[in-house]
Amino acid sequence: MHLKLAFIGFGNVAREFARILDHDRISLEADRALTWRVTAIATAAHGCVLSSRGIDLLEAVGVVSSGRQLTEIDGATSVASTAELIEQCDADVLFETTPLNPNDGQPAIDYIRSALSRRINVITANKGPIACKYRELRDLAKRFNVGFRFEGTVMDGTPVFNLVETCLPGTRVFGFEAILNSTTNLILTLMEDGRPFDESLSEAQLRGIAEANPDYDIDGWDAVMKAKALANVLMDAERRGTRVECEGIRGIDAGELKAARDAGFSIRVVARAVDGPESVMISVRPERVKLDSLFATIRGTSNVLVLKTDLMGEIAIVEQDPGVRQTAYALLSDLLRM
Amino acid sequence: MHLKLAFIGFGNVAREFARILDHDRISLEADRALTWRVTAIATAAHGCVLSSRGIDLLEAVGVVSSGRQLTEIDGATSVASTAELIEQCDADVLFETTPLNPNDGQPAIDYIRSALSRRINVITANKGPIACKYRELRDLAKRFNVGFRFEGTVMDGTPVFNLVETCLPGTRVFGFEAILNSTTNLILTLMEDGRPFDESLSEAQLRGIAEANPDYDIDGWDAVMKAKALANVLMDAERRGTRVECEGIRGIDAGELKAARDAGFSIRVVARAVDGPESVMISVRPERVKLDSLFATIRGTSNVLVLKTDLMGEIAIVEQDPGVRQTAYALLSDLLRM
Repeated sequence: MHLKLAFIGFGNVAREFARILDHDRISLEADRALTWRVTAIATAAHGCVLSSRGIDLLEAVGVVSSGRQLTEIDGATSVASTAELIEQCDADVLFETTPLNPNDGQPAIDYIRSALSRRINVITANKGPIACKYRELRDLAKRFNVGFRFEGTVMDGTPVFNLVETCLPGTRVFGFEAILNSTTNLILTLMEDGRPFDESLSEAQLRGIAEANPDYDIDGWDAVMKAKALANVLMDAERRGTRVECEGIRGIDAGELKAARDAGFSIRVVARAVDGPESVMISVRPERVKLDSLFATIRGTSNVLVLKTDLMGEIAIVEQDPGVRQTAYALLSDLLRM
Repeated sequence: MHLKLAFIGFGNVAREFARILDHDRISLEADRALTWRVTAIATAAHGCVLSSRGIDLLEAVGVVSSGRQLTEIDGATSVASTAELIEQCDADVLFETTPLNPNDGQPAIDYIRSALSRRINVITANKGPIACKYRELRDLAKRFNVGFRFEGTVMDGTPVFNLVETCLPGTRVFGFEAILNSTTNLILTLMEDGRPFDESLSEAQLRGIAEANPDYDIDGWDAVMKAKALANVLMDAERRGTRVECEGIRGIDAGELKAARDAGFSIRVVARAVDGPESVMISVRPERVKLDSLFATIRGTSNVLVLKTDLMGEIAIVEQDPGVRQTAYALLSDLLRM
């Protein structure tokens, strides 16, 4: 199978995925009879280009990383906009990794709609579309008989959506509790080690973990979007309606963490979804968790998801200290499951 | 799709699975177009019977649970032995749940060989065959173009084999560490709460968690078999050869647990596999684990597996407080993935 690939967004995650793809080229062909070429790359700041004969991926990574324009690449044709690029790219699989717009998930939702209705398989690492319009996009993919995958939107490449879909057939998920936001978890664990809030936040930013606007992490909304994405896919929350409560970590100081510890607790930002009588209740808030509990052991950028199911009781999956490679792997795992 | 099902072994796990199958009959037909009938059941103490028109599963559960003979069931034909039953059963899927023989995995391996070479799909919850003869059985299934599944052999229905196969494509597992034996974990955590070894063992037996012969759990060999099964499937250990070290919990007393706790540790029976230069090193032994570590939070009958991978780093999956239903679910999940 030979696949034409298009990239919408070519930031850290997409470029790391590009390096993995290039590195694994020989084994993908040998083990899976999978060959590929990249026929389109769209960026906000480095241009949008097409090339039917294929763009050298490592060259594109070098061009963008050094701040130059993709139009410099030999044989690449410039296109005016991302929307136009999707119309013209004639790809088999499109990787959508544009930055999150937390208000309405746009323009990523329109990009995905456009690609799916052109019968292009879509893989996204962008939680906005799954949190805001999952049902519509899933149904659109079904209607045009193409794949729509999004493992990287929650907990990077750690299987959460695929875990339930392929490994827990016949079970019903009726709720979950989780630690989903790496920035606030890193800040809380640095503060537990005695460092002040501002310094902890700066470290999270230095390490490239905090989102572009840290308020969005700090105030809990990143975790809410991820919890909504999980609830939409695993609990059909869009059909049932959701109620959301959200509280961030802005008010927490070192004294509060120390008082909790003296009483035998850590503080973690816990995201929950509960199947209520009329809707799915989603909450994100800092909670005291016992020092000897699973959640207290989740430190730094690690994440955890505890699924509550009928036949299998509680199952937890933990991602230890993820980096950009783990999110990039999500794109690969989705590609290999297409 | 209509499937003829055969049961080899009809103990607690198979009977719980039978209850789930019966309970889900309508939804399996509605959601998955799957109908079934049971054409054969073989037991050691309650006879072996065939019925081409189908055996009422709940009736069979009742007969065996009350200590009677399966030949009492209307329309059932008696067969002399399990081997003969496999030859004659004409099933599509065979569930093998006979008790483990820890020495060589027999006679389960012969049952599975016989079924696979008659083009019968096999689902087993018996770790012996996977620990002793995985490669041969996998290749036999491939040769006869039938399925061979075994999710329930390690950590009950919690996805471990399926997790790697379907959710982590393209990654390499180069090692793992795990708590795999519920009996020793329950005993250690009861002893941490101040109860003596003998009393803790009795409780594990009362709760139906200890294997028939508790020595096998206590001395670490149950965990070794599970670790070998994992290493065979996830790390191709049979081809590379294995070295095994095993130490049980017989020597541990309350004083040692208290001394560990005072120093900031719990004791857990940790199973490890490491990809060595010449072979796969498998070890099972009691280890001190930090009180604030993931492993220290695994209490009672809970289990954990931490996979060490190239692309995804470390991923942990935790099964919380499993019972017989979770093992029975493994058979259902394997059936639905056939």
